[in-house]
Amino acid sequence: MTSAERSPLTRKLSAFVALSEDELAVLERLHQRRRSFTAGRDMVHQGQSARVAYILSAGWVCSYKLQPDGTRQIVDFQVPGDFLGLRSVLLRTSDHSFEPIVDIEAAEVLTSDLLEAFTQTPRLATAILWAASRDEAMVVEHLVGIGRRDAGARMAHFLLELASRLALVGMGSKEGYDCPLTQYHLADTLGLSAVHVNRVLRQLREEGLVTFRDAHVTFHDYGGLVDLAGFDPAYLDQTGPLLK
Amino acid sequence: MTSAERSPLTRKLSAFVALSEDELAVLERLHQRRRSFTAGRDMVHQGQSARVAYILSAGWVCSYKLQPDGTRQIVDFQVPGDFLGLRSVLLRTSDHSFEPIVDIEAAEVLTSDLLEAFTQTPRLATAILWAASRDEAMVVEHLVGIGRRDAGARMAHFLLELASRLALVGMGSKEGYDCPLTQYHLADTLGLSAVHVNRVLRQLREEGLVTFRDAHVTFHDYGGLVDLAGFDPAYLDQTGPLLK
Repeated sequence: MTSAERSPLTRKLSAFVALSEDELAVLERLHQRRRSFTAGRDMVHQGQSARVAYILSAGWVCSYKLQPDGTRQIVDFQVPGDFLGLRSVLLRTSDHSFEPIVDIEAAEVLTSDLLEAFTQTPRLATAILWAASRDEAMVVEHLVGIGRRDAGARMAHFLLELASRLALVGMGSKEGYDCPLTQYHLADTLGLSAVHVNRVLRQLREEGLVTFRDAHVTFHDYGGLVDLAGFDPAYLDQTGPLLK
Repeated sequence: MTSAERSPLTRKLSAFVALSEDELAVLERLHQRRRSFTAGRDMVHQGQSARVAYILSAGWVCSYKLQPDGTRQIVDFQVPGDFLGLRSVLLRTSDHSFEPIVDIEAAEVLTSDLLEAFTQTPRLATAILWAASRDEAMVVEHLVGIGRRDAGARMAHFLLELASRLALVGMGSKEGYDCPLTQYHLADTLGLSAVHVNRVLRQLREEGLVTFRDAHVTFHDYGGLVDLAGFDPAYLDQTGPLLK
């Protein structure tokens, strides 16, 4: 088994398409330039002209936009198997920043590598487009969450989405998952204050639904949380033998 | 000049790449199945398994998600030259609904047509990916707007973004543009009530910045509105001789 076969990205794409030996080889070559980044130090700055993307193989990253007044909106989190900056490869500037939440391992992918891989194996291109479409569907869900869900449903939806995403790469289940996010991350994601985040998490715990403590999320009543959030995982499009 | 050379999509993609005769011909073939849709009647329903996308050639469409409680979050609008449902082509279900705001003209594109076009002309594929990346960047901006901008800046940003997008297809300028949206559309987009939308628009008018009346947006002080919104059009990536 090659390293690409074992990579989280390979596991993820396999939920969409069964990759051939040739396609796996092309995917492996995309993993060649391995790099490490330190927690808390930005990898790509908003406004930077960065024609490079990364495939995250270990650790968590957040992507965010700073507002002129200094407030921060977290757009999304990346977990192993996710692309970072796939969008920026084609736009002429990066429209947001990436910050590793813990020390991470990632493979650097140049625009030219990606376009070459697309030309060699259209099916792999389609699989990567699938992953990009899924990323966009998540951003849409976050938009709906902030626009239309109350704080409890918003938090529940967010914790359930992470569980599904992590399950796809073998790092989560209906029991729970390890999660390095702080209350400040949650606040900047959900458009709440850190105090409000605290209160919402206490309420969900007291209702016997979920506990987030000591960097671990534990589901006590997965079905109850799904009902509270109105969580329908169809937008994640992972109809394999996972959480659905 | 062929019809595809004249199409709004061709104008838009030309901001990214100069298309060859061959590529224009492939693009033209994507425009073959022309269809009309009536205002107010959904084209694609949330949850529908729709392996078809559309290229909008005339009229406006909104894409939205309904929440279990019946409230609606508008995710984005599509104007001539935009794809509808490009994401749904790869995901197994449509993650939102599309409603024509006025009577529209669109070309139907099957998944198979699109993948065939991608294989024939990787450069055209890249241009379409650019358009998809730009669409996602807009959704990110809307997320930031709802999460972090006050009502005035949110409205100003939205009206400015539409001006840039319409300018790209010759339908808007720094003077203004025709706009068929109602206050209910604005409310469901910006996470405000219709009453609040009214108040914000009156305020922007009284400050001498912009008037939205009788289906037309008129900029009185474009620069002032840009300042109020903190609008940086870099995320739209249209460095041609347009609004920037």
